[in-house]
Amino acid sequence: MGKTVKMGLLGMGRIGKLHAMNIQNSLPNAEIIVAVDPFLNEEMEAWAKGIGITNCSKDPRDVFENKEVEAVLICSSTDTHADFIIRSARAGKQIFCEKPIHTDLDKIKEALAEVEKAGVKLQLGFVRRFDRSHKKVRDVVASGQLGKPYVVKVCSRDPEAPPMSYVAVSGGIFMDMMIHDFDMVRYLAGSDITEVNTVGACLVNPDFAKYDDVDTAIVTLKFANGAIGVIDNCRQAPYGYDQRVEVHCEKGCVQDNNNLENEAYISTASGVEGAKPTWFFLERYNDAFIAEMEDFVDAVLEGKEVPVGGKDGLESVRVAMAARKSLLEKRPVQLSEI
Amino acid sequence: MGKTVKMGLLGMGRIGKLHAMNIQNSLPNAEIIVAVDPFLNEEMEAWAKGIGITNCSKDPRDVFENKEVEAVLICSSTDTHADFIIRSARAGKQIFCEKPIHTDLDKIKEALAEVEKAGVKLQLGFVRRFDRSHKKVRDVVASGQLGKPYVVKVCSRDPEAPPMSYVAVSGGIFMDMMIHDFDMVRYLAGSDITEVNTVGACLVNPDFAKYDDVDTAIVTLKFANGAIGVIDNCRQAPYGYDQRVEVHCEKGCVQDNNNLENEAYISTASGVEGAKPTWFFLERYNDAFIAEMEDFVDAVLEGKEVPVGGKDGLESVRVAMAARKSLLEKRPVQLSEI
Amino acid sequence: MGKTVKMGLLGMGRIGKLHAMNIQNSLPNAEIIVAVDPFLNEEMEAWAKGIGITNCSKDPRDVFENKEVEAVLICSSTDTHADFIIRSARAGKQIFCEKPIHTDLDKIKEALAEVEKAGVKLQLGFVRRFDRSHKKVRDVVASGQLGKPYVVKVCSRDPEAPPMSYVAVSGGIFMDMMIHDFDMVRYLAGSDITEVNTVGACLVNPDFAKYDDVDTAIVTLKFANGAIGVIDNCRQAPYGYDQRVEVHCEKGCVQDNNNLENEAYISTASGVEGAKPTWFFLERYNDAFIAEMEDFVDAVLEGKEVPVGGKDGLESVRVAMAARKSLLEKRPVQLSEI
Amino acid sequence: MGKTVKMGLLGMGRIGKLHAMNIQNSLPNAEIIVAVDPFLNEEMEAWAKGIGITNCSKDPRDVFENKEVEAVLICSSTDTHADFIIRSARAGKQIFCEKPIHTDLDKIKEALAEVEKAGVKLQLGFVRRFDRSHKKVRDVVASGQLGKPYVVKVCSRDPEAPPMSYVAVSGGIFMDMMIHDFDMVRYLAGSDITEVNTVGACLVNPDFAKYDDVDTAIVTLKFANGAIGVIDNCRQAPYGYDQRVEVHCEKGCVQDNNNLENEAYISTASGVEGAKPTWFFLERYNDAFIAEMEDFVDAVLEGKEVPVGGKDGLESVRVAMAARKSLLEKRPVQLSEI
Repeated sequence: MGKTVKMGLLGMGRIGKLHAMNIQNSLPNAEIIVAVDPFLNEEMEAWAKGIGITNCSKDPRDVFENKEVEAVLICSSTDTHADFIIRSARAGKQIFCEKPIHTDLDKIKEALAEVEKAGVKLQLGFVRRFDRSHKKVRDVVASGQLGKPYVVKVCSRDPEAPPMSYVAVSGGIFMDMMIHDFDMVRYLAGSDITEVNTVGACLVNPDFAKYDDVDTAIVTLKFANGAIGVIDNCRQAPYGYDQRVEVHCEKGCVQDNNNLENEAYISTASGVEGAKPTWFFLERYNDAFIAEMEDFVDAVLEGKEVPVGGKDGLESVRVAMAARKSLLEKRPVQLSEI
Repeated sequence: MGKTVKMGLLGMGRIGKLHAMNIQNSLPNAEIIVAVDPFLNEEMEAWAKGIGITNCSKDPRDVFENKEVEAVLICSSTDTHADFIIRSARAGKQIFCEKPIHTDLDKIKEALAEVEKAGVKLQLGFVRRFDRSHKKVRDVVASGQLGKPYVVKVCSRDPEAPPMSYVAVSGGIFMDMMIHDFDMVRYLAGSDITEVNTVGACLVNPDFAKYDDVDTAIVTLKFANGAIGVIDNCRQAPYGYDQRVEVHCEKGCVQDNNNLENEAYISTASGVEGAKPTWFFLERYNDAFIAEMEDFVDAVLEGKEVPVGGKDGLESVRVAMAARKSLLEKRPVQLSEI
Repeated sequence: MGKTVKMGLLGMGRIGKLHAMNIQNSLPNAEIIVAVDPFLNEEMEAWAKGIGITNCSKDPRDVFENKEVEAVLICSSTDTHADFIIRSARAGKQIFCEKPIHTDLDKIKEALAEVEKAGVKLQLGFVRRFDRSHKKVRDVVASGQLGKPYVVKVCSRDPEAPPMSYVAVSGGIFMDMMIHDFDMVRYLAGSDITEVNTVGACLVNPDFAKYDDVDTAIVTLKFANGAIGVIDNCRQAPYGYDQRVEVHCEKGCVQDNNNLENEAYISTASGVEGAKPTWFFLERYNDAFIAEMEDFVDAVLEGKEVPVGGKDGLESVRVAMAARKSLLEKRPVQLSEI
Repeated sequence: MGKTVKMGLLGMGRIGKLHAMNIQNSLPNAEIIVAVDPFLNEEMEAWAKGIGITNCSKDPRDVFENKEVEAVLICSSTDTHADFIIRSARAGKQIFCEKPIHTDLDKIKEALAEVEKAGVKLQLGFVRRFDRSHKKVRDVVASGQLGKPYVVKVCSRDPEAPPMSYVAVSGGIFMDMMIHDFDMVRYLAGSDITEVNTVGACLVNPDFAKYDDVDTAIVTLKFANGAIGVIDNCRQAPYGYDQRVEVHCEKGCVQDNNNLENEAYISTASGVEGAKPTWFFLERYNDAFIAEMEDFVDAVLEGKEVPVGGKDGLESVRVAMAARKSLLEKRPVQLSEI
């Protein structure tokens, strides 16, 4: 067996637990040796122990100051990401951070500067890039076999809307949900976004309006390479997690379908019925969560580039800000305005 | 405009009317100038007139003795096919005949001998060969791009069982229904059948047993070129006409799906529902009926080979006999026994 | 046989010929008795004769003044549509007119006023409404079974760009191509469009820019009923005619796939390959062209409402104008501005 | 955390390692505490240690005599299965055994008698029953919603043929490969098999004939409940693991498609190309291997019935024997002959 990356986990919420389980169960060359959560309780400790993490704490210093810890997983609440990146970088740790880095651009830039100064790696948790189907679409585009990309389309719809208590602190549909799609279209187009225009509406639940938010939005895009694009988001698609991408190029089109719960279908006098898409991101992106962590571990162990870096984290936030601005100001917004 | 093939129609039942409408409406270089039916009535005459056939009769001699008639369409009842082929051939007419030629092998051979003697063309109505999807499957196999064929599979299921009155005179499932599939597997494999084994059952309606018939049957096959195959038939598939073929070859597989009533589908919390296959042969093989007649007209006009000839008519009947013999004798039957 | 609608055809170009063939060959209760084209030549006359139209002329008066003619098919060049509608209406003829009515709003309104005054029917040639799959999608939405529509999406891409000589006089992508899609989204949403925003680019061929046109465009839409939508168009999709619609509603989604050239597919070590979409509108909307004419004939014979009326013709032109305005002025445009 | 089932593993070959990894990584309430292999070497010990198994041995007594061991996983070579079942049963252990139990019927019956005497559980490793799609097909049939089953079809093709050295000891295509499908059709039909007829050929490699074996076979089946069926197997399908089932019932049909490597597809002028099926059983049945073990652990912990029992193991062997007999004797064989 080769070297193992020892990790510290910050945040034991849903996404922190998910990464921790993947690392402990599926990544032979990585190991979480300490887990921190400000709300640490008995349930969390028992859960950690169950997957072999015996060292738990409420204090992030137990990660940053632990000499054995080579890499930090930042899975805490969004407002802590930038500070934890800075503290990790200053401690010389490699960093994996969930998106978004922060909702304040200056804070993001400060964090990225610290990362650069420290010369550590920073990988952002844009997990969808690691989905087999999306990745295949991007690989086909990037190979050039279809010629230049003309139009990039992403349809991204959650199965059910979050509770209003979450909406209140979510940062809005662009920063919380469509940010994944902004990263996806940049990934697919191989180019930065230069302009956005937003159409939005509260169709699922009028209460979204209370937070100056919408539950359904369509954003058109211009890319630096001349391509154009469109993303549509909805907080509620009762048939399951709808996650499809489509890139039209000079010589053809490459797109993908959803994963289904199963491949069985029933033919009767009333039609042909099959399974619906897998329910939500845990089901759809299960393998992708493992794949992104494998890539991070590889990057650390072998000194390779991370596949999703700080610039990707910055750009997706800028585009989210522009999309929101376009919604509020009812006009196309240039990224240069942000 | 070039030359037009003038035709005489024998039989104004469902299939005769179908061919007549296709010729009058869709084939610019063919025309039916006389139509005969022993049960000719006012409705038939009005229908004929409606599509431009003004000359109707009860006497087949009005076809055979008409000097203007270059080609005869035999769409009369099965027991008359062989005699009409003989009379057409002796009159020097080109012949299109619905399947089967006859249920008696000697009669078939006699008819084919007359055709050969007269040097006229005889095309059999195995319409499925002209279906776009089946034809594509066969073209891929015949091209050799997948190497040798190993296994040929045909799933062929009618949407609803015929009335028992029809079953009584149908000649049984092998002669009436599976005969199309015997021709199809020969077409796909590019080889004759040498052995069959039948498993059958009365599952849809026990009354089939009264006629020594079955409503559901699976027949395995050996081909002269070493390939093996299987056909499954059922008289009742409530979801519509199920017509799929599949050929496994050395380097891959080529198969087809059913045509659907439409391409719309609905995704809800209970699943994804699409349209069922088109209802029956009129819907599925609509274009194929036109295509086979175009080929016949071309063969007549340009002196080309017909795409489905007398030997194909003979072989499909022999295989149907062998399949029935296998069912009754509960053993594999060699085609050399027939 | 019942009553037959006698028709006069104006324009013997591609679309005029198409309708004529469908009427003569496939509609038993309609008949073209006179055909007019200002460039009438021997080829046109021979063609007309071949499908049973013996009366040809260069003068539209031979249609308007013919007492036998009950209905007029306007398939002439776009700039003549409005005038021919007016002259048909004044002559008391029923009218089927290809889209668009005109590119000048006043002219359209004048024509519609004459139609109303004369009390004749006017059906517009928005043929896609009669496509089996699109119609099924609309029927599901209109049934209310999925609740309110939230988002309407149309992907509409031609297989190959027209020659620049055509682009010069086409009226631009919005008036010439996307006009079909503006009608489609109104049909699917069951609601009028109130705002559009356009993103466009010359990606296929920079020469489009010479005509202040684009070859690729994405237009977002707001509807009067609160729904939002998006259409994407491209003049060139090398894999064939891409025509898909998708409506997301409260309780689910209904969408459709393209028709394919055939349903065969080949599985090998390098993947699974199937047929591409049918080539262009003649292949895809073949049945729909017949269906729209059947509905027009029914409307005339039975005094029913036409399925696509003058208002639909007017609205689609207004939206096309707004979409172009949005492109040129780089801002969202309200329909109330048009 | 609740009770954990402590297990002993017999056999550290491919399938033994697979089960061990699933248990150690994915089953929180089961644990392998001792692993035995007669060819135990350093590599195996290191591998075992890597997943937390510190106790390795060459002697099966270290499993049977270990008081802590509650359940035994028999993953050793086929000829040892029956004896290890007997020894496990006598030691009062719960048993999970890979298929087949043995190739000698008397030996199987002796083993099952010992299991019954000891009152322990015996689950057979027919993993395909736990595949999501196959299970859905069976659940639909078993629910009765489609009425009685009429025809059961299984297409089962391996991506590449095993080496001849394996063929020599495999027991032949029926005992080694189709045995899974015999179990599958029994599972789908919910009924025992009463008669088989085999057609087979050496098409992939003539060397199979040296072992009185075939590489391609089609077996038709009769079931006790009146249904009929067919299985086709081939040792080589270059496009990947082809695993499809189809059940035609009174009121409709339920079937499944293969899992694909990804859901992306490319449309170009030459067609539409998608991914091929997942490569082989490790890829296709990955989740199913975990699911069958979860069911076994549940059965042990909660005293429930095992989902696949000794009778299923016995019947599949009997049918495999009958299928081979049919091939060699060129006639249908009754199960009562075996």
